[in-house]
Amino acid sequence: MFQAAAKTLSSASTSSVSRGISSSLRHYCEKRLRVSEALSGTDLGTNVKVQGWVRSVRPQKTNLFLHVNDGSSLQSLQVVAGSELNDPSLTFGSAVEVTGILKKSPRQTQPVELEAEQIHVVGKCNPLDFPFKIKDRHSLEYIRQFPHLRCRTNAFSSLLRIRSEATAAIHSYFKENGFLQIHTPIITSNDCEGAGELFQVEPSGPEHEEDENYFSVPAFLTVSGQLHLEVMSGAFSRVYTFGPTFRAENSQSRRHLAEFYMVEAEVSFTQSLEDLTKVMEGMFRSATEHVLARCAEDVDLFHKHVTPGHRGTVEAMMKRRFPVITYSEAIDILNSSSETFVFPTTWGCDLQTEHEKYLVKHCGNTPVFVTDYPYDLKPFYARDNLDGPKHTAAAVDLLVPGVGELCGGSLREERLDLLSARLEAVGLEETYSWYLDLRRFGSVPHGGFGLGFDRFLQCVLGVDNIKDVIPFPRFSHSCPL
Amino acid sequence: MFQAAAKTLSSASTSSVSRGISSSLRHYCEKRLRVSEALSGTDLGTNVKVQGWVRSVRPQKTNLFLHVNDGSSLQSLQVVAGSELNDPSLTFGSAVEVTGILKKSPRQTQPVELEAEQIHVVGKCNPLDFPFKIKDRHSLEYIRQFPHLRCRTNAFSSLLRIRSEATAAIHSYFKENGFLQIHTPIITSNDCEGAGELFQVEPSGPEHEEDENYFSVPAFLTVSGQLHLEVMSGAFSRVYTFGPTFRAENSQSRRHLAEFYMVEAEVSFTQSLEDLTKVMEGMFRSATEHVLARCAEDVDLFHKHVTPGHRGTVEAMMKRRFPVITYSEAIDILNSSSETFVFPTTWGCDLQTEHEKYLVKHCGNTPVFVTDYPYDLKPFYARDNLDGPKHTAAAVDLLVPGVGELCGGSLREERLDLLSARLEAVGLEETYSWYLDLRRFGSVPHGGFGLGFDRFLQCVLGVDNIKDVIPFPRFSHSCPL
Repeated sequence: MFQAAAKTLSSASTSSVSRGISSSLRHYCEKRLRVSEALSGTDLGTNVKVQGWVRSVRPQKTNLFLHVNDGSSLQSLQVVAGSELNDPSLTFGSAVEVTGILKKSPRQTQPVELEAEQIHVVGKCNPLDFPFKIKDRHSLEYIRQFPHLRCRTNAFSSLLRIRSEATAAIHSYFKENGFLQIHTPIITSNDCEGAGELFQVEPSGPEHEEDENYFSVPAFLTVSGQLHLEVMSGAFSRVYTFGPTFRAENSQSRRHLAEFYMVEAEVSFTQSLEDLTKVMEGMFRSATEHVLARCAEDVDLFHKHVTPGHRGTVEAMMKRRFPVITYSEAIDILNSSSETFVFPTTWGCDLQTEHEKYLVKHCGNTPVFVTDYPYDLKPFYARDNLDGPKHTAAAVDLLVPGVGELCGGSLREERLDLLSARLEAVGLEETYSWYLDLRRFGSVPHGGFGLGFDRFLQCVLGVDNIKDVIPFPRFSHSCPL
Repeated sequence: MFQAAAKTLSSASTSSVSRGISSSLRHYCEKRLRVSEALSGTDLGTNVKVQGWVRSVRPQKTNLFLHVNDGSSLQSLQVVAGSELNDPSLTFGSAVEVTGILKKSPRQTQPVELEAEQIHVVGKCNPLDFPFKIKDRHSLEYIRQFPHLRCRTNAFSSLLRIRSEATAAIHSYFKENGFLQIHTPIITSNDCEGAGELFQVEPSGPEHEEDENYFSVPAFLTVSGQLHLEVMSGAFSRVYTFGPTFRAENSQSRRHLAEFYMVEAEVSFTQSLEDLTKVMEGMFRSATEHVLARCAEDVDLFHKHVTPGHRGTVEAMMKRRFPVITYSEAIDILNSSSETFVFPTTWGCDLQTEHEKYLVKHCGNTPVFVTDYPYDLKPFYARDNLDGPKHTAAAVDLLVPGVGELCGGSLREERLDLLSARLEAVGLEETYSWYLDLRRFGSVPHGGFGLGFDRFLQCVLGVDNIKDVIPFPRFSHSCPL
């Protein structure tokens, strides 16, 4: 078994320095550890092998000090070697394999160090060509120029660990609360919601340059999984989806991307918007607490070096329940403020970013829910509050410090007569006959929301530009790799 | 707080039958339970409210029996009511809210039943128009015609619970094994791998009908996150991604979709293909065991009613380690078989589905790894084994019963000289200069694989058509909703 797999890699184009123990023997007596495992201290006194990339090299008279990182933690493992193990190819960014004994460190900076017996340079890195320099703290803007290399910096590798952990936290929250995960489709024939900002999809290449669409109908990249989740909320009382969504916007804003991640949930048998705000707030708190606890070191890097002072804002957010105001109350607040706004604040106008930021500050620089927006501002699916003369729909946004709108949601119009009248008025009754079917057969009051996951990371970390919280940002005129 | 959210839903267009306790009072004394919670039996003797959809109605002389399902489990909750609570709108598919006392059931079929005090029909369902009938067991083909309603059948709601649980199991496996989750991009400018089968992406609408690309370069839907994971494997020793991938194929096969889900992983500091086959086999076993244990009832529905006999195949698969054969051995096996194949089986030919199925059977109807494929069959990134005269690359496929190819992977060419020579030979050195950079700076031996998640579900459940294991299948000429 595995006979074919037994071929080992040749080590061409690498250099090796050894203290003499034959490497075939060593293979059997070493324990291969990741840096985070080595740092945990459970293997003190053991002969181990650690592999990673060099983050610092300090040759001294009799000793050589290295820091080796493999992405398993922000902290690198300190390697101490006799100076005879030094090698000109041991540079910042090079990949190494170090074998030796894990010891308690006499230094205060870290509890464990690796006393090297052998250091093998697996992959060289020419420091003149490498865009990151050993002594520099590069800005997020600078490293953004190197999308294929920026994960090799401390800041961006911390971001990626936080992003991975936050993703897991959100899945855990929903699982613990009985939500079923649905893989809503990326390609869809729904074309109404964001008209003019949709990406269309067709096969590339000359053999497809026909008049006929591949899917027989025009097909687009999804702007939201909501309608597909609503399908599911006719059979499951709690569903969610977490994946990429798309807008063909031409903006180069710090809060928008052409491809971004959304968490969307749908709840059946709702009684009021509170059924949604509870889930929104619960998820926000749970994911934030999870990240602060599990990625303390990585979050600290941002709170200390990238956005000093942001820690206080985050802690304040978590201290009290998020306040809830109605859109009408929000308009009153804006109108009684002494601030001059660029956009009007009369009842019926959409809230702009300047308004959202003012409301967040007014409420104590904490996340705030705004509910019951003017009916005419909301899409066809928002539930009619049947009120007046200021006619509203049961919609809710969550506004947060620094970012503005983080979540948007609504109860959905489950009443067949009201929904079909509204669709008929805009000539979409036929297009959405399947959607009306959901109300024809066992319709239930339900509602849901979407949260911009990248903006959530911006909010928790205090990162100003959304391009710095996603591995491969896509926006107009930019799609490298 | 939540003042705006306090409006309750009006119950227009619904009917209600009550035994007299005022519903405002009831609101305070009932505990709202999901069906799975009610069935667990922990709330026996309690006054509860259960909401869901009617799966069966049996009016008898003095009693009325209902089965109510809310998607939290395959099993429905049996509701027993006095016949005075019957209502013509209590039909198969209607949505109801039932309040009453949870009691130990005198019947053998289930441990708990709900003695109803009030049944409220929340949403009616006309049985003449509803495409599913109470007494019929509809085939997967039949329900596929109703993409917006098929989640309301037992089989498809089981499938969705299994899919959600399998997704969670895969995330758990990677998290427990120290892999970082990376959100690799959907839109990419890499256009080489599957030339001719790519979807291209541009904004829709007349205002975008210019010559210029939105991203300044042609952009496509990803066929694989591998190259982006390789970026990450220059800083993290274990990464993975799990999301949708795309092929603009014109086939209508039972194993292909235009949009399907892939799990892809990349491991750094590999020594041999065994580093990959271990992860592939580990993930397969872990996810399969998880699903069999956590979704026993749902899996049974498939193994008993949809694909009788498949249970034995799955159990046999899990009994022993997956065998490993080389491509050359596979060719020998095929050539010494008495079977007649449509496609040739000479060394250097690609393995076809008929060959894959034969090899799986030959090895005992169990998953089998095939390694070390002809170098010329594999893409530029596959690691050269530098052997001969039969020149191979360090690539591996996992073939499984019923499905054929489930996973494909390889060690990646980490040696700069070999990789740039190969890219130069096909004129792609400039396009992939960023990819060559990964080998210029701290290159490490690494490798990875992709697993077709939808095919994995086919394999475990024995479902013949891939369209029946994904919520909204997309394929040529089909993209409803």
